Amino acid sequence: MPNPISSLDPIWLERAAAYQARLTMPAGALGRLLEIGRQLCAIQETLKPCTDPAAVLVMAADHGIADEGVSAYPQEVTGQMVANFLHGGAAINVLARRQQAFVIVVDMGMKTALAAPPTASASRFVSQAIARGTANFVTEPAMTSTQALQAQDVGRRVVAEQLAGQGVRVVALGEMGIGNTTSASAIAAALTGLPAAAVTGRGTGLDDAGLRHKIAIIDRALARHFPNRHGPVEAAEVLAAVGGFEIAGLVGAAREAASRRMLIVLDGFISSVAGLLAARLEPAVRDYFIASHRSVELGHRVVLEVLDLVPLVDLGLRLGEGSGAVLTLNIIHSAADILRDMATFASAGVTGLPE
Amino acid sequence: MPNPISSLDPIWLERAAAYQARLTMPAGALGRLLEIGRQLCAIQETLKPCTDPAAVLVMAADHGIADEGVSAYPQEVTGQMVANFLHGGAAINVLARRQQAFVIVVDMGMKTALAAPPTASASRFVSQAIARGTANFVTEPAMTSTQALQAQDVGRRVVAEQLAGQGVRVVALGEMGIGNTTSASAIAAALTGLPAAAVTGRGTGLDDAGLRHKIAIIDRALARHFPNRHGPVEAAEVLAAVGGFEIAGLVGAAREAASRRMLIVLDGFISSVAGLLAARLEPAVRDYFIASHRSVELGHRVVLEVLDLVPLVDLGLRLGEGSGAVLTLNIIHSAADILRDMATFASAGVTGLPE
Repeated sequence: MPNPISSLDPIWLERAAAYQARLTMPAGALGRLLEIGRQLCAIQETLKPCTDPAAVLVMAADHGIADEGVSAYPQEVTGQMVANFLHGGAAINVLARRQQAFVIVVDMGMKTALAAPPTASASRFVSQAIARGTANFVTEPAMTSTQALQAQDVGRRVVAEQLAGQGVRVVALGEMGIGNTTSASAIAAALTGLPAAAVTGRGTGLDDAGLRHKIAIIDRALARHFPNRHGPVEAAEVLAAVGGFEIAGLVGAAREAASRRMLIVLDGFISSVAGLLAARLEPAVRDYFIASHRSVELGHRVVLEVLDLVPLVDLGLRLGEGSGAVLTLNIIHSAADILRDMATFASAGVTGLPE
Repeated sequence: MPNPISSLDPIWLERAAAYQARLTMPAGALGRLLEIGRQLCAIQETLKPCTDPAAVLVMAADHGIADEGVSAYPQEVTGQMVANFLHGGAAINVLARRQQAFVIVVDMGMKTALAAPPTASASRFVSQAIARGTANFVTEPAMTSTQALQAQDVGRRVVAEQLAGQGVRVVALGEMGIGNTTSASAIAAALTGLPAAAVTGRGTGLDDAGLRHKIAIIDRALARHFPNRHGPVEAAEVLAAVGGFEIAGLVGAAREAASRRMLIVLDGFISSVAGLLAARLEPAVRDYFIASHRSVELGHRVVLEVLDLVPLVDLGLRLGEGSGAVLTLNIIHSAADILRDMATFASAGVTGLPE
């Protein structure tokens, strides 16, 4: 039985705000750093929150929908990039090293298992494939409802066994899977009731014709699975019909991380779609989210708005892997540092404002 | 004789872009990280730029204009906060520690010299006061033109002696000085030809009446010094009339840093006004600038637009001290890491796009 998720206690937000007002700066002068600090205080129920260690969880899987030619890259790139993660040469490795975050990569269902996972790897690797790729959701459900639950359970167990055991306080959610922006757009459309065109972008780099084709494929899939759709569809149903194993894994991971009071850093479109699914399934999880960046992928903006999250940065990123989330870990660490390490007006002998 | 500043050679921007296209990610997928990377390549004339060590230079001074009641805080706070910087308890210390940047604080003209600068200090301290505060620029020029040149020269020498000698590649420009948003607004108005109201904000926290008073004071000062102003006034004249010693110091520091091919990270309003003054005096310096954040101070937006700089983050900061610039050092380091450490499609055996 999963642990319950508690909403944050507003008393901790108030205590944190009162403490921040005593730090040697004009009231509120560190803006969103203070907001992050209050969220951390409420999550950890302390005025001296700790954000180390931080981890990035990258879930990888393949997608049957890739057969429809919806990606600029061939499907074998999923496995090749996972090998790159394990050898330490990908963007996520480089960015995570700078943040001193560790990387854990999970094969949630790649088409081809890694030939020989390296023993001395730059990232931890967990092999938990539900199946060798999802089914093509234009013609059939991407996965069975049992598979969707299994994938969520893998996500839960990875957080419980690999992250909680290490004392992880902040987890960034990343992914890799050729075709997965198509799955994410289909999920976003189904969860919001919007048409596919409103939540579909170019992914890794489709041209105009490719984008039109991708939208048409998603529309066909939505019409097939939800013929009577006139508004949001129920989350569990959406996930099985048009989801992906890595997305389901992230849903489970987010819920487990929230139940263990970790701050959950959403990355781009796919990661945020997983966040939205998790919040639909268990609304209290939302209190543990922070949006790292606003990607150029159209649907990402919509999903963040529905989640009522304002991203920390807008740097034109559209890579995935957890890259944007990892890049903002430093801002999150800094928010905690301010609470832990700054002097107060009284301790520093600085004249504050009259009360 | 100061070293000349060279504009960046576009061939290095092209070389960097060609190399970035070979890294294992969809073309352009790291957005502005790649843009920063190209700027670093062109500044350092290499494809493997280095951003360590980084430093934050915090120049502090007092302002005669504070006598007009334009700040929410009393003037003694300048010296108290500098003492706080040296004891390591201020926001800038906490943020710089996370980035492993060193802090150097310069007394450019505080009203009261530090009683006893600590021997074992969290920040390096340089005492170079031009005078014990500027004159009140409502009634007379803030400084003589000789003082303005002296202050710029101090900025140059600090960069040459304290930063270049340490091999610093990236320098963040920060400041402390009660009353200095009033000086910065007057400078911004004079340099752009805009009315005071278009470039004046609440500083450390003025209320509506305080803001109206501040605007009126600036309008009076501008009318006194530039009675025939119908457009931008010449930079050296503006600096002496309504500037501050710390602002002049930052102008000299920026020019020296650019001549030594350092990346210059502008912080908030005052730091960016110093950047604008430097660019008016020597346009090539602009190539070495990066705007770290967009502060809530109204004039900051205007100054960044005039400089044609888009800030990296917008986090509601309004502290100064170099805090926003230091916070974004991590993004800048990450941009360099990507160039130095990521695998290429060829080296990682990942299938790229067809040429």
